[in-house]
Amino acid sequence: MHTLRADADLELVTIGTELLLGFTVDTNGAEIARVLSAQGVRVVRRTAVADRPEDIRQAIGEALRRTGAVITTGGLGPTRDDITKQIVADLFGAQLRFDDAVWQNLVERFRRFGRVPAASNRSQAEVPEGATVLPNRWGTAPGLWLEGAPGLIVMLPGVPLEMRKLLEHEVAPRFAARSAGRVIRSFTVRTTGVPESSLAERMGEIEPEIAPLTLAYLPGLEGVDLRLSVWGVSPDEADQRLRQAADLVTARAGEHAYGEGETDLAAVVLERARRRGLRIGTAESCTGGLVGGRLTEIPGSSDVYAGGVVTYSNELKTALLGVPPTLIEEHGAVSEPVVRAMAEGAVNRLGADIAVAVTGIAGPGGGSEEKPVGTVWIGLAGAKPAEARRVVLGGERHDIRARAVQTALFFLLRRLSE
Amino acid sequence: MHTLRADADLELVTIGTELLLGFTVDTNGAEIARVLSAQGVRVVRRTAVADRPEDIRQAIGEALRRTGAVITTGGLGPTRDDITKQIVADLFGAQLRFDDAVWQNLVERFRRFGRVPAASNRSQAEVPEGATVLPNRWGTAPGLWLEGAPGLIVMLPGVPLEMRKLLEHEVAPRFAARSAGRVIRSFTVRTTGVPESSLAERMGEIEPEIAPLTLAYLPGLEGVDLRLSVWGVSPDEADQRLRQAADLVTARAGEHAYGEGETDLAAVVLERARRRGLRIGTAESCTGGLVGGRLTEIPGSSDVYAGGVVTYSNELKTALLGVPPTLIEEHGAVSEPVVRAMAEGAVNRLGADIAVAVTGIAGPGGGSEEKPVGTVWIGLAGAKPAEARRVVLGGERHDIRARAVQTALFFLLRRLSE
Repeated sequence: MHTLRADADLELVTIGTELLLGFTVDTNGAEIARVLSAQGVRVVRRTAVADRPEDIRQAIGEALRRTGAVITTGGLGPTRDDITKQIVADLFGAQLRFDDAVWQNLVERFRRFGRVPAASNRSQAEVPEGATVLPNRWGTAPGLWLEGAPGLIVMLPGVPLEMRKLLEHEVAPRFAARSAGRVIRSFTVRTTGVPESSLAERMGEIEPEIAPLTLAYLPGLEGVDLRLSVWGVSPDEADQRLRQAADLVTARAGEHAYGEGETDLAAVVLERARRRGLRIGTAESCTGGLVGGRLTEIPGSSDVYAGGVVTYSNELKTALLGVPPTLIEEHGAVSEPVVRAMAEGAVNRLGADIAVAVTGIAGPGGGSEEKPVGTVWIGLAGAKPAEARRVVLGGERHDIRARAVQTALFFLLRRLSE
Repeated sequence: MHTLRADADLELVTIGTELLLGFTVDTNGAEIARVLSAQGVRVVRRTAVADRPEDIRQAIGEALRRTGAVITTGGLGPTRDDITKQIVADLFGAQLRFDDAVWQNLVERFRRFGRVPAASNRSQAEVPEGATVLPNRWGTAPGLWLEGAPGLIVMLPGVPLEMRKLLEHEVAPRFAARSAGRVIRSFTVRTTGVPESSLAERMGEIEPEIAPLTLAYLPGLEGVDLRLSVWGVSPDEADQRLRQAADLVTARAGEHAYGEGETDLAAVVLERARRRGLRIGTAESCTGGLVGGRLTEIPGSSDVYAGGVVTYSNELKTALLGVPPTLIEEHGAVSEPVVRAMAEGAVNRLGADIAVAVTGIAGPGGGSEEKPVGTVWIGLAGAKPAEARRVVLGGERHDIRARAVQTALFFLLRRLSE
């Protein structure tokens, strides 16, 4: 039997013509690297191959010879492009056999959704002899764990939710049981409302202070994440060093640091409003409902978020929020007086204690010299006098809207903190 | 000088510790593969390395020796983890020199956003001797194109928007000028409202009919995409074969096929409503504004989409939509009578000709035997008697909400088509 070393290296083989052509983004690779690094397992290579038997055979065979430990994703679904299991069986000198337990599970799953399996689903119940079936309660294709002379191979479905669940419940615990206590760990401090270069100035000459940890700047639509990483130490030492460095980084980022790890700014806003006993309302124009969408993505948001209006037309700004038509005529829909009136209207009409309003020019059309594409006004009302702030956001329509949502949430958080 | 072959192979090297640890998903790799395949350039390998000089040097060096053509992403930003240019200059035996034009462009860009460059931005104006600067109007770090004895290297920033723009405006045209007319092309038929296995049954024994084209099933939150691909033929032949196969696939998918390529269902809905001269309104509960968000993501949606309400609380269902409280008490907020009343209220209160309403249980809490998590009611009103349909959607909160939005748009499209 192949035994994984404590500081094990592992390769990923991602199967799917769509990945090679680039029509599908491979989120699975990142997820696997992240989860397994917490067990001290390092992904040293990723290979993407098309749905062609010879390409798959070659990629898996090479990866097994190089590293002796491989995880595959994709190639297990019900359609004709799924041939991975046969190839792995061949490589391990095993036969495929029909597994009745897998089949019964699949029939039951279909029944719950009021359907019956198609004939093309039967191949999903075939497994290589000697493989451990990793039950998939979230989809139709089980994962498979197979060890033998060529090494260790773990086959996972390509559908992200199913892959993630199997990784968490079946794969990670098996690797954890083999690791000898050395880990790769990271810790993220999330910031928003400050550009990367200004943030770097705030951090100053921090590298020597945090060595041997490393710091990476990860800009995105929600702001800049600051990622601290440490390799090859014990879990306790990793946690202690990361905690110290995170405190330093957080202090230097000031009010722009809003959370740690994968914290969503929307969750921070909801929690602060909850502590203060305030109900939130939203009034959106250019973001079209996405501020409400972000807040309600958080489970349990209903006790803090009352609701909102999407007043995309000027008529609805008046009908639903009571914005005077003369105000819109005089200043335009993207203006300080209108966004103030929207926020005040939201407090009054939605039964909210505090409200945020967003109006702006997301593009590609509608910009002018005075109000270029990316101009967004954020209004706040409730709890104290209404206020408004203007920002100019970069990117295209999608990016501008996502940044406008994040800015609205950031301003809402600041008002809740005052 | 290195000359790219007509059927050129190319490697990608993605730089960033965060990619190796899996905290960031590499969308750039897919984008590059997709855009360059249209020029007959095939990405044969992707490597992700950490922000460590030796790792970067090794990965780029090996890729150049193997394939002679490399695109890097990342490692060009203003912060300390950006060391790629120095390494590439070393590999090509060149010096780095300060480029004043790049610097002036950067200063101007900062000025537009009301800022001045930080000292850490100066390194972004350094370029290896002999490199062509690819101007970046969308960010601070320019791309670089360098040819020499080791081969061809193209360095692009890692920020997705900037990478995409440079790829489209600077990189793709240069590769197109070198290709000899053989292409890799794909064509997607988008379907929704039908599971993968049922779709496969509808397609039947289609492979021999479309050979040598290949067909892949790509399930996602918006439905199942059917991707047809063809390799190594002339552009005309590729287009003709893809068109024939797409027609066949579309016919077999029936009403579930709603578009081609990257068509967004929201855009199809808007276009159909525009043709019929109907204004759309939305009333959302469990989706919290995401239906409005999808519709307004489409530029020019304001002539068709009036707006909407996010009635997350029961009180707002009554106050904003006129849903009788007794109806909610008797049947619950997730029920046929309530979703009908929401849709009817949206038509009346939003000045819309047709409205879609969504109420459901997105989880993780709130499910029951009778109404499990994933239960979603979609209501439609306007233009003819109100109607409602129930679906049970799989996945976790995020997935259920995304699927609910897509289902709402699909039902809206069907009503607009009747």
